[in-house]
Amino acid sequence: MRVAVLSPDLELTLEERDRPTPDDDEVLVRILSVGICGSDVHYYEHGRIGDYVVDSPLVLGHESAGEIVAVGEHVDESRVGERVTLEPGVPCRRCEHCARGEYNLCADVTFMATPPDDGAFAEYVAWPADFAYALPESVSLDEGALVEPLSVGVHVARRANVGVGDSVLITGCGPIGLLAMEVLRAAGATDIIVSDVVPEKLALAEERGADTVIDVSEENLAEAVDAATDGRGVDVVVEASGAPPAVQGAFDAVRRGGSVVLVGLAPDGEVPLDTNEIIDNELDVFGSFRYRNTYPAAIDLLADGAVDVEGIIDFDATLEAVDAAFQRAQNPETVKGMIRLGDD
Amino acid sequence: MRVAVLSPDLELTLEERDRPTPDDDEVLVRILSVGICGSDVHYYEHGRIGDYVVDSPLVLGHESAGEIVAVGEHVDESRVGERVTLEPGVPCRRCEHCARGEYNLCADVTFMATPPDDGAFAEYVAWPADFAYALPESVSLDEGALVEPLSVGVHVARRANVGVGDSVLITGCGPIGLLAMEVLRAAGATDIIVSDVVPEKLALAEERGADTVIDVSEENLAEAVDAATDGRGVDVVVEASGAPPAVQGAFDAVRRGGSVVLVGLAPDGEVPLDTNEIIDNELDVFGSFRYRNTYPAAIDLLADGAVDVEGIIDFDATLEAVDAAFQRAQNPETVKGMIRLGDD
Amino acid sequence: MRVAVLSPDLELTLEERDRPTPDDDEVLVRILSVGICGSDVHYYEHGRIGDYVVDSPLVLGHESAGEIVAVGEHVDESRVGERVTLEPGVPCRRCEHCARGEYNLCADVTFMATPPDDGAFAEYVAWPADFAYALPESVSLDEGALVEPLSVGVHVARRANVGVGDSVLITGCGPIGLLAMEVLRAAGATDIIVSDVVPEKLALAEERGADTVIDVSEENLAEAVDAATDGRGVDVVVEASGAPPAVQGAFDAVRRGGSVVLVGLAPDGEVPLDTNEIIDNELDVFGSFRYRNTYPAAIDLLADGAVDVEGIIDFDATLEAVDAAFQRAQNPETVKGMIRLGDD
Amino acid sequence: MRVAVLSPDLELTLEERDRPTPDDDEVLVRILSVGICGSDVHYYEHGRIGDYVVDSPLVLGHESAGEIVAVGEHVDESRVGERVTLEPGVPCRRCEHCARGEYNLCADVTFMATPPDDGAFAEYVAWPADFAYALPESVSLDEGALVEPLSVGVHVARRANVGVGDSVLITGCGPIGLLAMEVLRAAGATDIIVSDVVPEKLALAEERGADTVIDVSEENLAEAVDAATDGRGVDVVVEASGAPPAVQGAFDAVRRGGSVVLVGLAPDGEVPLDTNEIIDNELDVFGSFRYRNTYPAAIDLLADGAVDVEGIIDFDATLEAVDAAFQRAQNPETVKGMIRLGDD
Repeated sequence: MRVAVLSPDLELTLEERDRPTPDDDEVLVRILSVGICGSDVHYYEHGRIGDYVVDSPLVLGHESAGEIVAVGEHVDESRVGERVTLEPGVPCRRCEHCARGEYNLCADVTFMATPPDDGAFAEYVAWPADFAYALPESVSLDEGALVEPLSVGVHVARRANVGVGDSVLITGCGPIGLLAMEVLRAAGATDIIVSDVVPEKLALAEERGADTVIDVSEENLAEAVDAATDGRGVDVVVEASGAPPAVQGAFDAVRRGGSVVLVGLAPDGEVPLDTNEIIDNELDVFGSFRYRNTYPAAIDLLADGAVDVEGIIDFDATLEAVDAAFQRAQNPETVKGMIRLGDD
Repeated sequence: MRVAVLSPDLELTLEERDRPTPDDDEVLVRILSVGICGSDVHYYEHGRIGDYVVDSPLVLGHESAGEIVAVGEHVDESRVGERVTLEPGVPCRRCEHCARGEYNLCADVTFMATPPDDGAFAEYVAWPADFAYALPESVSLDEGALVEPLSVGVHVARRANVGVGDSVLITGCGPIGLLAMEVLRAAGATDIIVSDVVPEKLALAEERGADTVIDVSEENLAEAVDAATDGRGVDVVVEASGAPPAVQGAFDAVRRGGSVVLVGLAPDGEVPLDTNEIIDNELDVFGSFRYRNTYPAAIDLLADGAVDVEGIIDFDATLEAVDAAFQRAQNPETVKGMIRLGDD
Repeated sequence: MRVAVLSPDLELTLEERDRPTPDDDEVLVRILSVGICGSDVHYYEHGRIGDYVVDSPLVLGHESAGEIVAVGEHVDESRVGERVTLEPGVPCRRCEHCARGEYNLCADVTFMATPPDDGAFAEYVAWPADFAYALPESVSLDEGALVEPLSVGVHVARRANVGVGDSVLITGCGPIGLLAMEVLRAAGATDIIVSDVVPEKLALAEERGADTVIDVSEENLAEAVDAATDGRGVDVVVEASGAPPAVQGAFDAVRRGGSVVLVGLAPDGEVPLDTNEIIDNELDVFGSFRYRNTYPAAIDLLADGAVDVEGIIDFDATLEAVDAAFQRAQNPETVKGMIRLGDD
Repeated sequence: MRVAVLSPDLELTLEERDRPTPDDDEVLVRILSVGICGSDVHYYEHGRIGDYVVDSPLVLGHESAGEIVAVGEHVDESRVGERVTLEPGVPCRRCEHCARGEYNLCADVTFMATPPDDGAFAEYVAWPADFAYALPESVSLDEGALVEPLSVGVHVARRANVGVGDSVLITGCGPIGLLAMEVLRAAGATDIIVSDVVPEKLALAEERGADTVIDVSEENLAEAVDAATDGRGVDVVVEASGAPPAVQGAFDAVRRGGSVVLVGLAPDGEVPLDTNEIIDNELDVFGSFRYRNTYPAAIDLLADGAVDVEGIIDFDATLEAVDAAFQRAQNPETVKGMIRLGDD
């Protein structure tokens, strides 16, 4: 089978490998749609994210969907033919975090396309059966692949404990910000403000239903939120940009007693924060890392038409054209590229 | 001014009374829309609900909206002219429950149309300014009046802690069941099953977006839910009928670890329940009594178009015709009658 | 090795069996202390609990502690010699419930001494390494065995969300009631009322620190609680008796907005409940089934001296004398018998 | 009556004023014990805290207890003679926050000894009856006065959602840190680590039951916590120092998925934080501002003997000697001074 491999010297090329054989508890999936994530592009450009370094060849891709073509011994034979999306992080199932259901915090997770674990830009992947979720007929394979970033939004919405009638600010209109917006609205948020520095992304957010958009290259974030909320501030901020001014602005834009969810990684990490403001306004600040137990909910939201994910796809390409696709994905105005392996 | 008064011998007649004067912290509201609630009809028919007895003349009505025509000394003059909906229960603000924000549990609440407190079938009502909520332009006065039963749904959704992707069963398609359905969907429920014994009400629920309807005069509730959920059961049941078989069925229809919210009062009160089932399946059972802190959220949901309430109004009438309206409201197929006081 | 086996015709006898071999992820434990649980006695007397029937020979016992004598291939060799307590229910690790950390609700659990799964009245047990918890030096083997019923109390305290300064009523002074009392006090409950019908058990509860004891064979439960709480009712009731009058009384004894945790199984199951009271008083009712993620906390409480469990042990016996011990355990005044296998 | 007044030029002197008359809903309290809080000392030294400036004479003191000597018209006459502690912040009872029970966030609060509101270094204070809480006989007046800082600890424990068996780190051994320690232990924390830079305070913390003490002038905080927790980190950090290195260390010392409660105000406010660490470790960070609904719980804890507060009192003085007492309170080794007005 063909796989797209990133070498330590950052060449992305197709390679032939043996088709994997599913273990007893696994399914073998013919991969059909794989989204290009910002982290894939980051490895492609820099060869590392923090401590994770591409020091041996790595198959990228962790937003994937396909069709089960074979099953291991302990898996129900009837699953062959099932259209599925794969949850890319498989935890140890035995540690303190796994036992508590916080499996996204498991230190021994196997996570696709994170060195040294290979990802899904591959014609076939063998994967634990319980991390391969059936897609209803009404959910497309592209949507299936985007269950992964949508899950980030579901987890954010749960972390924020968003409820009906809440006002929210989302800083950053990349895929995470835009898909979080979908989930927050589906969870009952009625007043949605978004900010970014790229006019095209703000326009897309507006088109997708944001009530207010703020171009923070031109306006002060907290002042603009104040104006949009009659001075009250929003109930919840989802910080999805990682940009230090946005992180700082998030704490000024939230109402007293409100919540700030941090999900966008900062390039550098260290941001000066006014901790007295967190105390005096008695804020809740929640880090949100990947997701857990979100796939069924995300699939249900898609099947119900409660969220739209396909509208963030800018372009698609074949596996053959994966390198060109990655180059296009580097454009800051691009939101989401989709590799369709069945199209070759 | 005219008011509609129910006498202890259950005559509902119009009467002239003095227009009230607002206290320092009150507003005077010209009432324009008032919904007829099942409890109003119950007093009209039986003269009592539980320990609350109509032993002196009582003005009915607690689902009201109108316009501020005067304000007390401590209230901002600029509120005159504001279109408002009135939250009918005003608590003591000093007890343990009020201090904790559970003011719906305050034992010293003044609640419209609950003996001995008069209600809103009156041309003018003086009411605490902070329990009169401004309606945005996009929200009609009828919608404003229905913020009250919609609030019951908001409170139910919060009690149930419903989240995105949840499956829910609502037993009973009266106003509470139907409006709870609106809020549960707005809160992210993606699979909505409803049950009732009146085919017209099930048809209305289906028209309003229920995914599955169950006529429990013909089908077994738990079996039908099992069939609709592949044997898993629903995440949440909202029991809005008060019918003992539905209460019992609720506990069979919910999944292991799921929640049952009880909101429909039983005619008699005592229902044999399998408490071992509550233990073995580790259920959460929540009573839901009226609402608290729901008006702003309910108004936001209406302003946002996230819920529909006007679609449950069967008919309207003038205050002059209030007695005929109450007779019509006794029809089991009727969902909601609306009195429009400005139409005389 | 010797094991104590209950035959389908309810003979409890010692038998020789092969010592088990630990699987890759297991440890082999030499069992040293095993408590006799009410459910063990129930099988001994009736041969069944609900749908669980002793239709082939069954090793009883699920409250156990001992010492690791060998480990499987994937387990750290250094654990040999470790004193451990065994969590008796091992879930599938793959279902919806396990993924969410609610593994006590897993339908595919293996649970010691629940047909057809053998228990711990055995000289050796092989058990998954992550369900064998190290005991600090300061925790005895008897205490280790009682981490199991103590865990029931920890789970109850979490389900009830008991906090500092709460008042609680515990109905039933068996091991579960008494150990729940320990945990509730450790969690900050400051006013503890207990009820039972056996004077000896009430005396034990009082000796162990209950602030008020109620003999419900002589006093009305709700009235006595009212008297003890100046008419307010308690914040939380833990119903640990399963007796229908206590279940009903629980709902009368709790304050408005309070919580009732059901943990005692009713002999029959069906109890007539006033559901309107649940609604009007907006109660939270929580079923509590076994426990999850409690062993580390329970061990910490023991190591810290924050709870006492040894004080509920009435008597001990050798494995040789297991049948006589079971006969003694049938006495309603007995609280807890302990089998010490190392004493033979 | 005599009151201790701080002038804008920072002279603390006794002055004669008219004894206040209670309003309808108030009680008149003869003040007997008043603690000296760090904020009192800060005003005494600097004449301001943030935006709150002593620009007219101010009565300091907000940790008070005494005896009711008269009541307003709406208050039960039988309360005369009652020993009470006064909750110093009285909210508006009408805003969004008050309605939700988050009255500590009310923008219109009247708070003792916060300009321009006078405090309790006065022989008599008139105060709303529902913010004057009865003290049981077993609780002394000094303890009553310290219900205020103890309440800060209760609120912290609730914000942290501390449960049985949790490990906690408290950074800072001033009154807040020490009393938070009492409440955290009462709430079930079994492993308590504290840090400070003053050896005397660490010694006091150890004497009062801290399991581990860390002198951060000599040891690295995160490394020492790592050593004390076998590399796991603590479940909860309560940051009670406001010192930037402690704030930063808090985030390194907490386990993955753990909580950090910020309660100590930073002198400057701005602290560089690694927000990526908050995300990757999915931390919960909670600001904790004063308290709400804590007085009854704090009094119950005292009455039950579950916490000790008198042990933090270093010295007492008469009202006459208040200025000398404030000078003594400036000593960094002093924890708590108590003014006893009845002793003159």
